[in-house]
Amino acid sequence: MPATEDAQETFERGKALLVRLSPAGAALPWDTFADIAPALGNSVAHAFGSIVSRPGLDLRTRELITVTTLATLGGCEAQVAFHIGAALRAGATAEEIVEALTQLSVYAGIPRALNAVTVARSVFAEHGVSPAS
Amino acid sequence: MPATEDAQETFERGKALLVRLSPAGAALPWDTFADIAPALGNSVAHAFGSIVSRPGLDLRTRELITVTTLATLGGCEAQVAFHIGAALRAGATAEEIVEALTQLSVYAGIPRALNAVTVARSVFAEHGVSPAS
Amino acid sequence: MPATEDAQETFERGKALLVRLSPAGAALPWDTFADIAPALGNSVAHAFGSIVSRPGLDLRTRELITVTTLATLGGCEAQVAFHIGAALRAGATAEEIVEALTQLSVYAGIPRALNAVTVARSVFAEHGVSPAS
Amino acid sequence: MPATEDAQETFERGKALLVRLSPAGAALPWDTFADIAPALGNSVAHAFGSIVSRPGLDLRTRELITVTTLATLGGCEAQVAFHIGAALRAGATAEEIVEALTQLSVYAGIPRALNAVTVARSVFAEHGVSPAS
Amino acid sequence: MPATEDAQETFERGKALLVRLSPAGAALPWDTFADIAPALGNSVAHAFGSIVSRPGLDLRTRELITVTTLATLGGCEAQVAFHIGAALRAGATAEEIVEALTQLSVYAGIPRALNAVTVARSVFAEHGVSPAS
Amino acid sequence: MPATEDAQETFERGKALLVRLSPAGAALPWDTFADIAPALGNSVAHAFGSIVSRPGLDLRTRELITVTTLATLGGCEAQVAFHIGAALRAGATAEEIVEALTQLSVYAGIPRALNAVTVARSVFAEHGVSPAS
Repeated sequence: MPATEDAQETFERGKALLVRLSPAGAALPWDTFADIAPALGNSVAHAFGSIVSRPGLDLRTRELITVTTLATLGGCEAQVAFHIGAALRAGATAEEIVEALTQLSVYAGIPRALNAVTVARSVFAEHGVSPAS
Repeated sequence: MPATEDAQETFERGKALLVRLSPAGAALPWDTFADIAPALGNSVAHAFGSIVSRPGLDLRTRELITVTTLATLGGCEAQVAFHIGAALRAGATAEEIVEALTQLSVYAGIPRALNAVTVARSVFAEHGVSPAS
Repeated sequence: MPATEDAQETFERGKALLVRLSPAGAALPWDTFADIAPALGNSVAHAFGSIVSRPGLDLRTRELITVTTLATLGGCEAQVAFHIGAALRAGATAEEIVEALTQLSVYAGIPRALNAVTVARSVFAEHGVSPAS
Repeated sequence: MPATEDAQETFERGKALLVRLSPAGAALPWDTFADIAPALGNSVAHAFGSIVSRPGLDLRTRELITVTTLATLGGCEAQVAFHIGAALRAGATAEEIVEALTQLSVYAGIPRALNAVTVARSVFAEHGVSPAS
Repeated sequence: MPATEDAQETFERGKALLVRLSPAGAALPWDTFADIAPALGNSVAHAFGSIVSRPGLDLRTRELITVTTLATLGGCEAQVAFHIGAALRAGATAEEIVEALTQLSVYAGIPRALNAVTVARSVFAEHGVSPAS
Repeated sequence: MPATEDAQETFERGKALLVRLSPAGAALPWDTFADIAPALGNSVAHAFGSIVSRPGLDLRTRELITVTTLATLGGCEAQVAFHIGAALRAGATAEEIVEALTQLSVYAGIPRALNAVTVARSVFAEHGVSPAS
């Protein structure tokens, strides 16, 4: 049985974490999807408040895992881009992100890795970072 | 163009790393598959020598990424079991492994995470570790 | 052994159903692919005539299942868009389609659901419907 | 922003729904995974309380969608079995479940459908139902 | 518009081809699934009669493609086993089958290839063949 | 244990093969990704030198398998386009490529096949070939 917590507290913790990981001024999912799928948008906030913000694994590693999970799924380019930015904000370096994607090429195949690295190049350029820096 | 290195050197480096990450006395892939698919077995050694052993990302994070990539793919229970053991040998804790699998549930769905946690329970028991310890 | 039926009858039944589910005047797959992959285009007609038109499950539920199957696969945005329109024509409401996509987020992960909801928003706008209406 | 609700209320609603959809006396996920991944087990309860129990789509259709989503993912036989039972408890007939799986064969391929139908046969036998009945 | 053909002719052609590719005396899908999902079983016969038996690509290549498609999907071990046997009956050698699976490791990852090669070893043993022979 | 070969030799063999399969003057992956993911780019060259160039399976069949593996994965349109061109350069006909994609529709579903055939149409036009020619 989970600790008793008001849903509002989980939501606020999730929102604060997602704001921290998002570009300044970015629209947040529960706003973007409020018109059409509010329960789905709220799921994102809940996931950040109940899972991504958990102790036991540092946020940098969580975001590297999220980037590689999305790259493995394929067809999630928008989410790969967002979470590469989030990984940078969580303290991962561009080199670590590229190494993580190179690592998954062994297990999920080279195309999934190349597609995600292509997304990474654009995000790195926006952030003014590069694996060599 | 890659640095010039004899394939034998890459193979030996990969073999040493894979031995370090394997249970004592475990059959190694290039032995297991030598009778039927030697090029595929050698690919594993090459991948460990040319990618998994690279600098730029610590081995503990590489193995956590490998575990979550395999869990995301699904249908790779044998590999999930091996790499959960490898993650432990690379310095990840049982708690970190469970948190990594919980993290991917948001992005790859709860069933993929539950299936991998079920594998983790067995591997943890063999290693005498638990997330709560 | 299947009931004896002329392939032409199955094709005509499939064509009639697909026309009913398509936007007025839309190109049909066996026309679109006649120049390059006629057997594949005819497979679509056959599938609609032999499977989608079967009794035992109502067409609205069939189309909701088709939308969620395509959303789960990922990388099928054109087909998701077509079948969201088809689901509306089969009697599903915009709200039901969004709820179906929200439901799959638990099992296939939130990104697959968000990507399909983004497609749904466009299709709903073309049809002048919304989940709130 | 979600309606304010205590997490305990969502959990209790999710638990009640999952008990209703489970075989009598079945172990529930937050009990089964309490020793190793309690946050993941609680995610299941939260998903049932916040998503599966939502209005806007009937429970029978939600379970048919869950079965087909799991069948499409592949490698989720345990979950397919559970949710075929849940679909029956939610009011779907064996015939509807088979038709739903036959429908997805067009979009996700015949093997995914055959694998799930093989699971369905066992579940139907346990429940004393059949598509022909 | 497809050439006019009685469904029975397509079915008979598909059945003859599938019998040719199956082990002697094997149960055929439309028999195995006649009790529970006859439309799905008949889909297999129709696919063999309308697609697998088409001219334009030799049967050996078709079966190698089927084996690698199933290996790429993952979670289709029973079908991988059947189609490795079918590839042998269609004239592929054990060496070609292993090379095909090694080829896909580059694109779908090494685990998918290793899992299929493990299945291949058993099938080769039943047929008394090996890649080295 | 692999035959001793200098990595440079494998790389050169892979490069020569990839140049042969690429459009005249095309950027090669280890150049395209040299700035951001050189190890990943080199993996492509290594894969072509150590696997794609192996004896035991003809290059035309290897490329047909690569096209269908990529089509099955989904979300790899750029790679599907490249390898359809490579298949043509390896001696496959447009008709064989379309038949290969039609074949996979049975096992991976019709949408994956239709998406790849749509890519094929563009590549065929660039090459001035068609399945009917």
